[in-house]
Amino acid sequence: MSELRQDPVTGVWVVIAPERKKRPRLFHRGSARDLTGSKDCPFCAGNEGLTPPEILAVRPPGTPAGGPGWQLRVFPNRFPALRVEGNLERRGDGLYDRMNGIGAHEVIVESPDHATQLADLPPAAMNRVLTVFQQRIRDLKNDLRLRYVMIFKNQGPAAGASLPHTHSQLVALPVVPLRVRQELEGARRHFQQKERCLFCDIVAQEIADGQRLVWEDAMACVVAPYAPRFPFELAIYPRRHGARFEDCPESELAGVGAALTTALGRLNLALKNPDYNLVLHNAPSAPGDEASFHWHFEVMPALGSVAGFEWGSGFSINPIPPEEAAAVLREVRP
Amino acid sequence: MSELRQDPVTGVWVVIAPERKKRPRLFHRGSARDLTGSKDCPFCAGNEGLTPPEILAVRPPGTPAGGPGWQLRVFPNRFPALRVEGNLERRGDGLYDRMNGIGAHEVIVESPDHATQLADLPPAAMNRVLTVFQQRIRDLKNDLRLRYVMIFKNQGPAAGASLPHTHSQLVALPVVPLRVRQELEGARRHFQQKERCLFCDIVAQEIADGQRLVWEDAMACVVAPYAPRFPFELAIYPRRHGARFEDCPESELAGVGAALTTALGRLNLALKNPDYNLVLHNAPSAPGDEASFHWHFEVMPALGSVAGFEWGSGFSINPIPPEEAAAVLREVRP
Repeated sequence: MSELRQDPVTGVWVVIAPERKKRPRLFHRGSARDLTGSKDCPFCAGNEGLTPPEILAVRPPGTPAGGPGWQLRVFPNRFPALRVEGNLERRGDGLYDRMNGIGAHEVIVESPDHATQLADLPPAAMNRVLTVFQQRIRDLKNDLRLRYVMIFKNQGPAAGASLPHTHSQLVALPVVPLRVRQELEGARRHFQQKERCLFCDIVAQEIADGQRLVWEDAMACVVAPYAPRFPFELAIYPRRHGARFEDCPESELAGVGAALTTALGRLNLALKNPDYNLVLHNAPSAPGDEASFHWHFEVMPALGSVAGFEWGSGFSINPIPPEEAAAVLREVRP
Repeated sequence: MSELRQDPVTGVWVVIAPERKKRPRLFHRGSARDLTGSKDCPFCAGNEGLTPPEILAVRPPGTPAGGPGWQLRVFPNRFPALRVEGNLERRGDGLYDRMNGIGAHEVIVESPDHATQLADLPPAAMNRVLTVFQQRIRDLKNDLRLRYVMIFKNQGPAAGASLPHTHSQLVALPVVPLRVRQELEGARRHFQQKERCLFCDIVAQEIADGQRLVWEDAMACVVAPYAPRFPFELAIYPRRHGARFEDCPESELAGVGAALTTALGRLNLALKNPDYNLVLHNAPSAPGDEASFHWHFEVMPALGSVAGFEWGSGFSINPIPPEEAAAVLREVRP
């Protein structure tokens, strides 16, 4: 059974999850696109028996649950960091604070095909992915023990993936993570001063300025952030204000899907299919922050290792100015 | 010229340092101990002409500056993230804040020998390293533009090193980094409540409890922290309270050196010479926090990649409980 422990100095929570040790590592060293192994791959169509039973699948009428035929499939992580079963118990341990590892840890396989990547999905399939993310968040918000639902994707071994078949992950947590709290607080400070959304202001400035703008249309935009931690880091913003991803209407979701496909496709062209992390930044499950927060996605290519300076300081050293990254990404076209 | 930029949402500062792009990558892929190349290695004795002029060197009387014979050598980073020259100028940029990249970025080569690692140094050489760290901090505190001096080591390519020859780095910053501020604030909160140092309390509890204790003597102890972000993460605490590393007397420094050698030596045995990051956690240059902060070192083996969940949440998932890591490290002995 895993547990959550809080660092008494910084307040950061850590999940101590011994079951994660058993996780397979099926990557061939250094190859981001592993096209072999669909016989053993637990995420391939036909191998549904290798995963826990599905929570949700998008499949044509008539195909039975637990078998092939699906276009997208969600199931519990076989090596979960957190589990839904049990009561949330908070305990002290001398100076320290811990709670048992209550939460959810799910896998969302976005395609039945072993070689397809998220960036390759046609618009309808990308919309399906985003709609299923919304459904899972809405469902888990009903569990009042869970304060935050985090959705992210690790693409490739350098980005922390243990399996090559395209998948995203969902972790629902009994606390709001520190980095999310920092974002919420930063956005609230700006709103208190100006009665405007910080992210709406960022989008307006970036579109007017243009230097860091990679792509825009009426629904969404792709921006190289002003102070990026990593080379070629990108943010994808819906242009209309909204604090919660799960409340985004379908038409707008399609616009964000197009922006995401553009961002990933251009990174693939410019950087030759880099490994990357994709993170949904969303407001917490409990109501609040409606006026000040603005949901968005962030993409961070895994181009280098994080070093002591970054770990010790929370500072980053980034050799690529975002203006330069944006110029490169404006030029490349599929 | 590099610049510092602040993320308007989280308040995190980032150094945008285009010169760092020119940095060489001399590692053979995947080999942590590269024993070849001392002819081309800019950190080897005899190759002093390949680095900027030395700031400080420990060398026997009679050996000329800039030539071989030294035991330890400090010089400016050839691809600096920050530079000492110029005035610190803070500027707005619409919503955003930036300042020019004033600071210092130095390299401390701890041995003239290409194959020697920090863990291999005999006690006298380790003391020399720690004493030189103190000297550099004291010297840079005289520059009132600089608010924080960070000392760290990236050992091996997975930990972000670009050269295999043993070296540490020093970055002096015109701001106190966010993570350091978080630590200072956490320690102040505890002190305000209890009028005791949080770290002294941690050391006392860990020595009494023993589960996460790797090693102790009268001067220092090595602990696997209660809520470690990474497998086999270690903290090295001096037992006597002190906020500033540079004020630590020589006798105590020798004790911490012995603890550091023990920690690194045991990690090398248990994990077969892992790449790692070492970070000195110290109070800022300006006076303050004397009663509440307690300097220490942290060692983080670079065993896996950091994934989307960690980047998005500031949360970590760690599959190895610190009690288990400590038990392994108590058993191994050189």
